[in-house]
Amino acid sequence: MRIAVLREQTANETRVAVTPEVVAKYVGLGAKVAIEKGAGEESRLLDKDYKEAGASISTSAATAVKGADVVLTVRRPTVEQLKGAKKNALVMGMHDPFGHEKEIGALAKAGYALFTMEFMPRITRAQVMDVLSSQANLAGYQAVIEASYAFDRAFPMMMTAAGTIRPAKAFVMGAGVAGLQAIATAKRLGAAVSATDVRPAAKEQVESLGGKFVAVEDDEFKQAETAGGYAKEMSKEYQAKQAELVSAHIAKQDIVVTTALIPGRPAPKLITKAMVESMAPGSVIVDMAVERGGNVEVSKRGEVVDHKGVKVIGYENLPSRLAASASQLYAKNLYAFLETLIDKESQELAIDWEDELVVATNLSRDGAVVHSAFVEKKEA
Amino acid sequence: MRIAVLREQTANETRVAVTPEVVAKYVGLGAKVAIEKGAGEESRLLDKDYKEAGASISTSAATAVKGADVVLTVRRPTVEQLKGAKKNALVMGMHDPFGHEKEIGALAKAGYALFTMEFMPRITRAQVMDVLSSQANLAGYQAVIEASYAFDRAFPMMMTAAGTIRPAKAFVMGAGVAGLQAIATAKRLGAAVSATDVRPAAKEQVESLGGKFVAVEDDEFKQAETAGGYAKEMSKEYQAKQAELVSAHIAKQDIVVTTALIPGRPAPKLITKAMVESMAPGSVIVDMAVERGGNVEVSKRGEVVDHKGVKVIGYENLPSRLAASASQLYAKNLYAFLETLIDKESQELAIDWEDELVVATNLSRDGAVVHSAFVEKKEA
Repeated sequence: MRIAVLREQTANETRVAVTPEVVAKYVGLGAKVAIEKGAGEESRLLDKDYKEAGASISTSAATAVKGADVVLTVRRPTVEQLKGAKKNALVMGMHDPFGHEKEIGALAKAGYALFTMEFMPRITRAQVMDVLSSQANLAGYQAVIEASYAFDRAFPMMMTAAGTIRPAKAFVMGAGVAGLQAIATAKRLGAAVSATDVRPAAKEQVESLGGKFVAVEDDEFKQAETAGGYAKEMSKEYQAKQAELVSAHIAKQDIVVTTALIPGRPAPKLITKAMVESMAPGSVIVDMAVERGGNVEVSKRGEVVDHKGVKVIGYENLPSRLAASASQLYAKNLYAFLETLIDKESQELAIDWEDELVVATNLSRDGAVVHSAFVEKKEA
Repeated sequence: MRIAVLREQTANETRVAVTPEVVAKYVGLGAKVAIEKGAGEESRLLDKDYKEAGASISTSAATAVKGADVVLTVRRPTVEQLKGAKKNALVMGMHDPFGHEKEIGALAKAGYALFTMEFMPRITRAQVMDVLSSQANLAGYQAVIEASYAFDRAFPMMMTAAGTIRPAKAFVMGAGVAGLQAIATAKRLGAAVSATDVRPAAKEQVESLGGKFVAVEDDEFKQAETAGGYAKEMSKEYQAKQAELVSAHIAKQDIVVTTALIPGRPAPKLITKAMVESMAPGSVIVDMAVERGGNVEVSKRGEVVDHKGVKVIGYENLPSRLAASASQLYAKNLYAFLETLIDKESQELAIDWEDELVVATNLSRDGAVVHSAFVEKKEA
């Protein structure tokens, strides 16, 4: 079994799909691992370390993928990059299929079995394969590092002989994996942290990290809180009251981090231009949803916008700004999944196409798109 | 009594010598405060807020200083900037006199009474005026923020389903005010922190912040530790053993922050080129002594040097990168001193030239340099 690892071609993508540590594990499963030259460079992983772990270094993508049974990537590769891999070779990465149906179709037609890691079900046995969580966790950390770097004051309260500097006020919108890590990091740095989420059940998690949960806590909220989870959408009346509360809260913040994403749909707009303008000059907003259209009206993808003195940070791909950590976790996520597709005796691929994880992540095989989310779409 | 506040002319100097809060206090003492237009802009302090606090806004430095009894600055002004101030006007700032004897001489000759705040004695009643401490504290914080921003991994240990990310290892050289705040900040962010200092007595302070003290703890060390303070220079043998230990320690670090300064002399070289090269690619060094020649052989003033994959950060004036906090404390330090020079009844300057604080900080008056450190130098 041959595994190829490509050097990423996407702009600002510094991650890589294997680490030397994980190469050794693949070799232990009987695989031959070919890595495109310099693939790990931007994650501080050197060709010589891959070699030492048992991989061969290929001078080009074409050499690496030649005869490959499996190709491992971070982002969706092109048909061109995969030329020479075996028919029905597994191509595992974060292929970002929504909105890219055309590219997925072309890769399917070219004969590759695409597996997209973002679709991994959030069930217990797949936790170790959950790339969204592992990367969002780091992104949440990095968002606060970006904010602290851009901010012209200190985060912690400082009690000095000349007087006290008050702690920065940080507000995190959305208490998913990224949001919770942002809360934890801002709290570590000494900020006064608050957070909100559309799920009343998030209150407990926010408070367990030392954050203040910002919500209109009326009867409806209290019922939803005990019902828990994603169970119930709140009434229009509630949403309006909550929006008003959040809007007033934002005006008093130094730092705001927004993390709201809806799978397969544009990010919800949470912060209007007027709300940005309500903040004091020197405040900082980090829009973590900028790749999906953004949570902030004035944010720009890949840029830091200065809107009337408020810095609005819209960097793409925050995990790539922590490449060494991000690649380490991503490579382990990928390994954990691929390992389940390999027969330990024969040391060959042995895929159960009915397996829940395979069904959830497999986009294409035998020259066609097979994933229900896209097949249905086509027929509709 | 007229107080003038200048807009700083030094490159990268974003601080300002008063805040609106402090303007109100000066007005309360009966002073008229004239502020050069835009002086607080880079510290996020607006002319309209100064005005509201009781200051007048002058369209130029010349207008602001006209007839001034006191001129407040951050850095040493030029003779040109002060033209029009009263004879023997107090000029209070951080005038950085060592190595700038010529400029100080010119200002003295032009008839200004310079007070340099860095010379404030470190005694209890002057703590509130201690600009070195207030600014070094912020610089120590910012040094770690710079390091975390440049580093391509996360600082804290992260335990995820896909495995554990080990905490970053951070080493702080010098446990003065800046070093202690760097230790505290790196610790807050979740790094495994160690530190060293030439004073064995620093061990307790480092450990109280959760850092590990790195020292050859032989009998000589133990004696010096209990003797405490700056009391005793260690033997050459001890220094050699200690240097070897530190060198081996640095090779294993992800982050190193150096803070070693000797007043009036070039900074000691603590980290050789070979020691930088002993660190893994991706590691980060912050040289906080870069304005005094640097603690690191390869650092460059005002730059980030990439030396074989190790990033060596040599930004000048770290407090200016936290301008809003830094100005707030600096303005209070200055106020605390100036207040003691003003007679509350007559609301005029009433300086006791024999006062310990005045003697320590006053560089010039009546057209001549008067400070012992410089008068003696001249005669030698």
